[in-house]
Amino acid sequence: MADTGSQMLKDLYAGWIAANEADPERTLDAIRADFEHWGDVTTEPGQVDYIEGTVGGVPGLWAIPKRQDNACVLLCAHGGGYVLGSMYSHRKLYGHLAKAVGCKAFIPDYRRAPEHVHPAQVSDVVAVYAGLLADHGATAERTAFVGDSAGGALAISGLLAAREQGLALPAAAYAMAPYLDLEARGATYETNAEVDILGSRDATLAFVDIFLGPDGNRHDPLASPLHADLAGLPPILVQTGADDVLLDDSRAFYERATNAGNDVALKIWPDMQHVFQFLAGNSAVADTAIAEAAVWLREKLGIVAK
Amino acid sequence: MADTGSQMLKDLYAGWIAANEADPERTLDAIRADFEHWGDVTTEPGQVDYIEGTVGGVPGLWAIPKRQDNACVLLCAHGGGYVLGSMYSHRKLYGHLAKAVGCKAFIPDYRRAPEHVHPAQVSDVVAVYAGLLADHGATAERTAFVGDSAGGALAISGLLAAREQGLALPAAAYAMAPYLDLEARGATYETNAEVDILGSRDATLAFVDIFLGPDGNRHDPLASPLHADLAGLPPILVQTGADDVLLDDSRAFYERATNAGNDVALKIWPDMQHVFQFLAGNSAVADTAIAEAAVWLREKLGIVAK
Repeated sequence: MADTGSQMLKDLYAGWIAANEADPERTLDAIRADFEHWGDVTTEPGQVDYIEGTVGGVPGLWAIPKRQDNACVLLCAHGGGYVLGSMYSHRKLYGHLAKAVGCKAFIPDYRRAPEHVHPAQVSDVVAVYAGLLADHGATAERTAFVGDSAGGALAISGLLAAREQGLALPAAAYAMAPYLDLEARGATYETNAEVDILGSRDATLAFVDIFLGPDGNRHDPLASPLHADLAGLPPILVQTGADDVLLDDSRAFYERATNAGNDVALKIWPDMQHVFQFLAGNSAVADTAIAEAAVWLREKLGIVAK
Repeated sequence: MADTGSQMLKDLYAGWIAANEADPERTLDAIRADFEHWGDVTTEPGQVDYIEGTVGGVPGLWAIPKRQDNACVLLCAHGGGYVLGSMYSHRKLYGHLAKAVGCKAFIPDYRRAPEHVHPAQVSDVVAVYAGLLADHGATAERTAFVGDSAGGALAISGLLAAREQGLALPAAAYAMAPYLDLEARGATYETNAEVDILGSRDATLAFVDIFLGPDGNRHDPLASPLHADLAGLPPILVQTGADDVLLDDSRAFYERATNAGNDVALKIWPDMQHVFQFLAGNSAVADTAIAEAAVWLREKLGIVAK
């Protein structure tokens, strides 16, 4: 049976695609303005405060549930192909997650492409992580990386970059619909072409060129973590909708990261679009996905029920 | 020339009306869910923090600009016919105003009808005002009442109720498109019937019955401030769109309150819908209206430019 709320996300995505098709010369500012409405399909979680701040020199938004374990923190990287989306578009999504986990979240407003190409994004995420550890009382074992879409990639590439910088790795990473293969090789680009409203191989490859810039390397493991040495990572949870063209990115990552000896969980939700968790409060499926992720994160972060 | 952003508000209102017309048996919860999207047409002001709290026993949302005069406060009553809307639907609207004024705002999540009929709403607003004065360091001369639609009525009826309770009156009141005549006598219900997307006399009268309950008195001055003794009020600014069926409520109030010896300013904005200020960030007209209100409020509150 179809999830009644999921039509809202389909309608939102269809509206964006229609606007772009109606005017192929649409400005980046106009497309960014569309994506600021991503969170319109998310209800207000309530009992969560939102405070702008800077961590590790990177501006961002704290989402602080009224009931929370102050020793824990979620570093939440927003999606949008490294080009779109912001700490505001994802405020409610990560507010829901923070509330469910019982833990504050910081959503970096990391530098976006094309103004800043790779590795500005992953550098900002690691700068935030280092700042949390150095200046905000966080500890690696009570911090988790989280992200969706391109932010889901950052939740994983952030682990690799943190390791390169000699930082202790966080306790866990949770990626929603991560965007991991800059070569867009997944068969789900074909098999989900009809059902995925938002994504397509052409769109992915266009974003890759913007993200990497003219001299980019699609095999750079920090840009395309499928090419990384994945050994020795903390536990990772991946959740993806079955109708997402990016589904095979998650499957390929699951296989490689598991083969490298990691504790990886992959859950695929039938009939769901890209980052269906945005439907928190409007879809029982999204609510269940976030609740399951919260149970998983609480265990990894050592948060005990109150 | 039409304001390009104003179509967004027309589309939003048209969607709500279409949903209600498609299903006349729609539940109150479904209609309330629609109105939670009011703020979807408002951009994020940025550099404003949002913290839930309780003032005078009433829950609500603080909107606290990073740059603000901590001695001042705006008490902002949201609209929605006393039945719809919330501290969340109006978060960004009052965030924009608070930022423009340079002063924190508190948006009470006052009790709504039909669960709580009049005078629960105005009682909650005055309880918040008394709480601001008693427990939050506010002073009457550095506090202003603000509201839109039914909240615009509360910004005025709140003055009357505060006076009844012997409280010093605030420095000023700013009402957007206030809903002041529960008998819906205004000629603009006819003259704007074609251009106002959202409002109608039938809708107003339906809300009145919900708001007042079975024993309600449409002449109660705290419910319908056009029937009040309006002498001795602080300066009041009223802003209304010219296409609003409620326009004549503002005109009648302006006439009576001016004749009672008050300092009242009325500004009518051509071609604008009900509470067009929701378009802050997306409409130059809305931005100008808020900027003008902010200049006016800063002067009344004694806020000097930084």
